[in-house]
Amino acid sequence: MEFQLEHTDRRTKARAGRLKTDHGVVETPIFMPVGTMGTVKTVSPQELWDVGVQIILGNTYHLYLKPGLEVLQHFGGLHRFNGWAGPILTDSGGFQVYSLDELKTIREEGVEFRSHWDGSRHFFTPEKVVDIQRIIGSDILMVLDQCIANPSDYESARKAHELTIRWARRSREHFLNTRPLYGYRQFQFGIVQGGIYADLRRDSVSRLVTIGFEGYAIGGLAVGEDPATRNEMTDVCTNVLPESAPRYLMGVGKPEDILDAIERGVDMFDCVIPTRNARNGTVFTPTGRLVIRNATFKMDTRPIQEDCPCYACQHFTRGYIRHMFRVNEVLGLRLATIHNLYFYMKLVRDARQAILNDRFAEFKTAFLERYYQGEPPE
Amino acid sequence: MEFQLEHTDRRTKARAGRLKTDHGVVETPIFMPVGTMGTVKTVSPQELWDVGVQIILGNTYHLYLKPGLEVLQHFGGLHRFNGWAGPILTDSGGFQVYSLDELKTIREEGVEFRSHWDGSRHFFTPEKVVDIQRIIGSDILMVLDQCIANPSDYESARKAHELTIRWARRSREHFLNTRPLYGYRQFQFGIVQGGIYADLRRDSVSRLVTIGFEGYAIGGLAVGEDPATRNEMTDVCTNVLPESAPRYLMGVGKPEDILDAIERGVDMFDCVIPTRNARNGTVFTPTGRLVIRNATFKMDTRPIQEDCPCYACQHFTRGYIRHMFRVNEVLGLRLATIHNLYFYMKLVRDARQAILNDRFAEFKTAFLERYYQGEPPE
Repeated sequence: MEFQLEHTDRRTKARAGRLKTDHGVVETPIFMPVGTMGTVKTVSPQELWDVGVQIILGNTYHLYLKPGLEVLQHFGGLHRFNGWAGPILTDSGGFQVYSLDELKTIREEGVEFRSHWDGSRHFFTPEKVVDIQRIIGSDILMVLDQCIANPSDYESARKAHELTIRWARRSREHFLNTRPLYGYRQFQFGIVQGGIYADLRRDSVSRLVTIGFEGYAIGGLAVGEDPATRNEMTDVCTNVLPESAPRYLMGVGKPEDILDAIERGVDMFDCVIPTRNARNGTVFTPTGRLVIRNATFKMDTRPIQEDCPCYACQHFTRGYIRHMFRVNEVLGLRLATIHNLYFYMKLVRDARQAILNDRFAEFKTAFLERYYQGEPPE
Repeated sequence: MEFQLEHTDRRTKARAGRLKTDHGVVETPIFMPVGTMGTVKTVSPQELWDVGVQIILGNTYHLYLKPGLEVLQHFGGLHRFNGWAGPILTDSGGFQVYSLDELKTIREEGVEFRSHWDGSRHFFTPEKVVDIQRIIGSDILMVLDQCIANPSDYESARKAHELTIRWARRSREHFLNTRPLYGYRQFQFGIVQGGIYADLRRDSVSRLVTIGFEGYAIGGLAVGEDPATRNEMTDVCTNVLPESAPRYLMGVGKPEDILDAIERGVDMFDCVIPTRNARNGTVFTPTGRLVIRNATFKMDTRPIQEDCPCYACQHFTRGYIRHMFRVNEVLGLRLATIHNLYFYMKLVRDARQAILNDRFAEFKTAFLERYYQGEPPE
């Protein structure tokens, strides 16, 4: 993978870069909306482009179950299936499988689980997860890792880390022994585990780098730990990760969390927050979140955000969007999603510009000061 | 209202015309998608324009309850509220009220009913329905009428017709004594009732024309009667309705029903079929309907309709749209809605062109021959 590190902020570890895939260039730091079932919920590929999305995430677990590999291969991969022409990153399915209560068994060979749709049994190995992602045809594949509960004691974290490394080795070997199916290149990221233990995290990085991947993800965070711990672990990882490869903090997060991680040298993010919050009627603005469903907005003729150029803000008022939520019209979900994605994409674009100008710290301070002006909606 | 009758087909009663409103010209015959709560379900105003929609319908009963008159007036009417810049026609709320089981009482003065949302009591009079539509700010207002069950005996139909005429007189008087609130013109249509009794229908037309409206609707059909009866009643009405005014057959219908009515001189239609069927996973094509949810389409890499230029057909396959329905993604509802609306708008556009070319009968025969090729999906 060609990752070009363009610039590192003068006073923080924040980085601006360019990640080249055969479906286009991604300017980092970047946020990746989550398209679980092949689509980012409620919006079309055109709307994703319009709000500035550059790369989306697909969930291997979900796509494997529906539409299934036969369909994905028949259609020539996920890009051809869902109409998104830009880059796609797929997770390994590991996190979804571990989220299934009592429906999984972890062995050295892999993980057995039952479908949340119909209870059918399935077995994921590191190799199979590579094969599945070959069929999905994502630009960036993630290795199968073992996620652990938070908190986990040292010994559990160590064991999961060791298994994750063994699986990473198998994953890489299988990746190097197989080829893309659809004529464009695919890249593979390793996943750093180790819980909240700095020595395990450092060991994980060092051994993954020895195996060698095109990029490195930090896994096992954004699972309920406090922000200080997350920031500390992020720092531990980015201090030892190679400068030359992209770094992806999985499952993060709120705007403030993303800024914390960018400051620590992370390049890539994914999270359901902008899209899920939108569908729950919460929208982001530079002065904080608004619960657009609230009666407060009944007569409000302003857009969600006065200076926002997104389709929702250019054409609809808070009062109308509130009405849409109140009467369960899906257009409301969609307008809120469009706005939130625009907000997130602008956040990372502004962060990138600030890095290029050596002003990331000032940007972050100014953003948060304004952002915390508003009343927290919960 | 300026209604310009451009041309009448040489061998049928089919008409092509132009209906001028302050929100734009509508070319007839026209189909009006239903935007019950202020929005045509799942699609944006931009998407309506893109598929060729010229005028939408709003439901007075629903808008009166939510968002309510206070909100609508505060926002300056429905156009400003929902972002649809083209013409809007609103029904009188009568049909919705009569559809409420046991929640209504009809008196000479008007109709009392309870909200389906919260059970609260409301009273609609012919005058109040005009006032509500003044506040909604629709371009075309419908009078309050009394709808009857199908079948209804002669005496019930006669009584409902007589009450409808008395209400029409009050409606028109109140309309002429009040003014638009937002600086553009509004027009009012009377509604022909009379059940399936030709003499009542003729009497209804004659007395409505004496009162005088900008247009005339045919009500009380599309309520379960057989097509032959509907066609007969339509003929009875259009034979005596003035040439110079637009004619609107309420609640119709399937493509074949619309063509039957165009042939009999009807200019305007509304129906939930294209949008509701879309949300149930049924799509229209020139060779019949497809139940896109069906397993048949799992591996189908064709668009819904090969030669269709709509956004759904230009970017998505049957297999993908089926997947969207299968995993309950709202993008599926939306793509099916976009396609079905495009199909309906093309149907009336093609019908209009055929009329202008004096070839309506040939067009209808050719359309139906091809349309019935496909297997009926139900």
